[in-house]
Amino acid sequence: MDDFTYRNETELIFGKQALSCVGEKTRSYGDRALVLYGGASAIRSGLISRVILSLKQSGVEVFELGNVEPNPKMSLAYRGIEICKREKINVLVAVGGGSVIDTAKTVGMGAVYDGDAWDFFTGTQAASMLPIGVVLTIPAAGSESSADAVMTREEDKLKRASCAGDFIRPRFSILNPELTYTLPPYQTACGAVDIIAHVLERYFTTVRGVDVTDRLCEGIVRSVVAASKRVLIQHDDYNARAELMLAGTLAHNGIVGLGRRGDWASHAMGHEISALSNAAHGATLAVMFPAWMKYVYQTDIRRFAQFANRVFDVQYMPWDENEMALEGIRRFETFLHQLGMSTKLLDMGVKEDAIPLMAKKCHQAGSFVSLDEAAIADVYRLAL
Amino acid sequence: MDDFTYRNETELIFGKQALSCVGEKTRSYGDRALVLYGGASAIRSGLISRVILSLKQSGVEVFELGNVEPNPKMSLAYRGIEICKREKINVLVAVGGGSVIDTAKTVGMGAVYDGDAWDFFTGTQAASMLPIGVVLTIPAAGSESSADAVMTREEDKLKRASCAGDFIRPRFSILNPELTYTLPPYQTACGAVDIIAHVLERYFTTVRGVDVTDRLCEGIVRSVVAASKRVLIQHDDYNARAELMLAGTLAHNGIVGLGRRGDWASHAMGHEISALSNAAHGATLAVMFPAWMKYVYQTDIRRFAQFANRVFDVQYMPWDENEMALEGIRRFETFLHQLGMSTKLLDMGVKEDAIPLMAKKCHQAGSFVSLDEAAIADVYRLAL
Repeated sequence: MDDFTYRNETELIFGKQALSCVGEKTRSYGDRALVLYGGASAIRSGLISRVILSLKQSGVEVFELGNVEPNPKMSLAYRGIEICKREKINVLVAVGGGSVIDTAKTVGMGAVYDGDAWDFFTGTQAASMLPIGVVLTIPAAGSESSADAVMTREEDKLKRASCAGDFIRPRFSILNPELTYTLPPYQTACGAVDIIAHVLERYFTTVRGVDVTDRLCEGIVRSVVAASKRVLIQHDDYNARAELMLAGTLAHNGIVGLGRRGDWASHAMGHEISALSNAAHGATLAVMFPAWMKYVYQTDIRRFAQFANRVFDVQYMPWDENEMALEGIRRFETFLHQLGMSTKLLDMGVKEDAIPLMAKKCHQAGSFVSLDEAAIADVYRLAL
Repeated sequence: MDDFTYRNETELIFGKQALSCVGEKTRSYGDRALVLYGGASAIRSGLISRVILSLKQSGVEVFELGNVEPNPKMSLAYRGIEICKREKINVLVAVGGGSVIDTAKTVGMGAVYDGDAWDFFTGTQAASMLPIGVVLTIPAAGSESSADAVMTREEDKLKRASCAGDFIRPRFSILNPELTYTLPPYQTACGAVDIIAHVLERYFTTVRGVDVTDRLCEGIVRSVVAASKRVLIQHDDYNARAELMLAGTLAHNGIVGLGRRGDWASHAMGHEISALSNAAHGATLAVMFPAWMKYVYQTDIRRFAQFANRVFDVQYMPWDENEMALEGIRRFETFLHQLGMSTKLLDMGVKEDAIPLMAKKCHQAGSFVSLDEAAIADVYRLAL
């Protein structure tokens, strides 16, 4: 097990009654709030109105920034930063999924920074930020309690993760599984894949002696596999929605990665697909993870055999761990297809001729296996 | 899944290098520290000197309170409170296991309170407390990141848990598995049992729809079962010691209990044994948990069958889940015996004639099954 430090101050407020405290909670951090949200669905459902009403009733002056898109763009974050500086905003409320929360994190860092907020995605550590509260509507990104943000700069189609730290975690996150009943099946499935990917990026590690976190990882993936199938059958299955929401937070708050080194190559390769095609993040992971697994599994066949055995119930076959490993990958692919996800790059609208540029932009990725540009291109080709 | 709120601000500093920052970390919370510790071993090993040197080098003035005993007593906490008030202590450093940390928590609450600190164990909520840092030497109680403390009042042999909240969690905890190499096998085993018991108290719940946390619980118990056997064979197996230390923290920081109602009857019944006989906490749990399981398992045979299947690999037998459940309990007992633990009350020096008084003091316990005085006496008798 590797040495580590861990701190997570996010207060989780989970359940059917959770939303009622959003005004009061926000007020404890500031009295001038910028509420960020995405598209029409959150407005149509009345959620934005309920949040704003609660804020106003708690004496918070409210400003709004809507239209956050999937694969959120820096241009909108710049607008948010401008509003914060002009209106002396002192707290941010993100109502949505990872895109909205990551935009809020970027705005929160940029609002108290004199330079270009893109700096935070190219190596600069933010020194401070505005406090953020979250009302989560999509269990997927885990950004509601994570120390990360991912943004896209449109000009050069660069999608990058922030180099921040524990302090960019939201101060509080309101998690009501009922708010996810209206998610379309495709978004639900993309979310489940993202949750599983966050676990697997940590699971496939070169660090030895990580049994506790191995088992936490395996348990969360098993739960998400079961719960995601259930919600696709019955969209308002509260307990299954609750499992997904809790799993989404636990998958990316850092706990399951304690003492491990994560890989993150599949994420990096997936980001290049989204930057090019605007494909949903979870969809890119459904494509890249199985291809990556096939490309790297021989590096540590036993870890993949363990994954196969403990997550997908592939029987232990000491005389053929290679077959165990492959069967685990096949069952993972089958599960993705059961969710309605494609595992083919071509279904993202990405053809072979785009691979050289994507590989060049991705350049280097992974720690389980360190992939150079040529290897990355090979993985993309496996995913065609 | 039940609604919940969760917040845990404890910073975990884990690994071989962790101890080096104790002075600097402490200094960030205060400049007059009371260092609490237990018996001779921490002094003999040089650990206390190293901690105090680090504190002094960081400009912290150091006061000491040693001789904290297992099943820590209020009388010593009162002395600590007196020192804090007299010397204007503004930060506490607990070097030890649960007894030392719980004493520090009690001192921390009492130092800023005008009444009797025992109030915190009879229903009073503390409003504030001195900040606490921890150097952990025994993975067991989980107090290094928990919101609980347990103390014993000698006069009436009452051992009680605090009614505190998130704010009594330590601010930072230094977790170096190497510091546990010198733990005697019996204490190591008692610690492993305590860790498992913290998980199982949460695992056996009446709340439905808790699959994610079920699997986290099962994973941690499996890991502790494996790691505890390894360290009893090789006392300086770093990774196995690290698994126990990480598991001990995760077992009781609240994560594995999210959205569940815990039972805690075995803890309550065990406390009465310690109050009477001063038996080690873990030893009382090894006695009470199997007896409790046998007494209550028919309330929810399938939950016990799941435990048997997922934790102790008892095969699924749909035609005889009762036998699955019983076999799981038997395997759990066998594991306890492998650790060298007794599962008999008589081995604690507690005879049948003590049962009525223990049951009367315990009075009422449990939420998985609510036990009254007569039922508690029956469970004690099962453990004879």
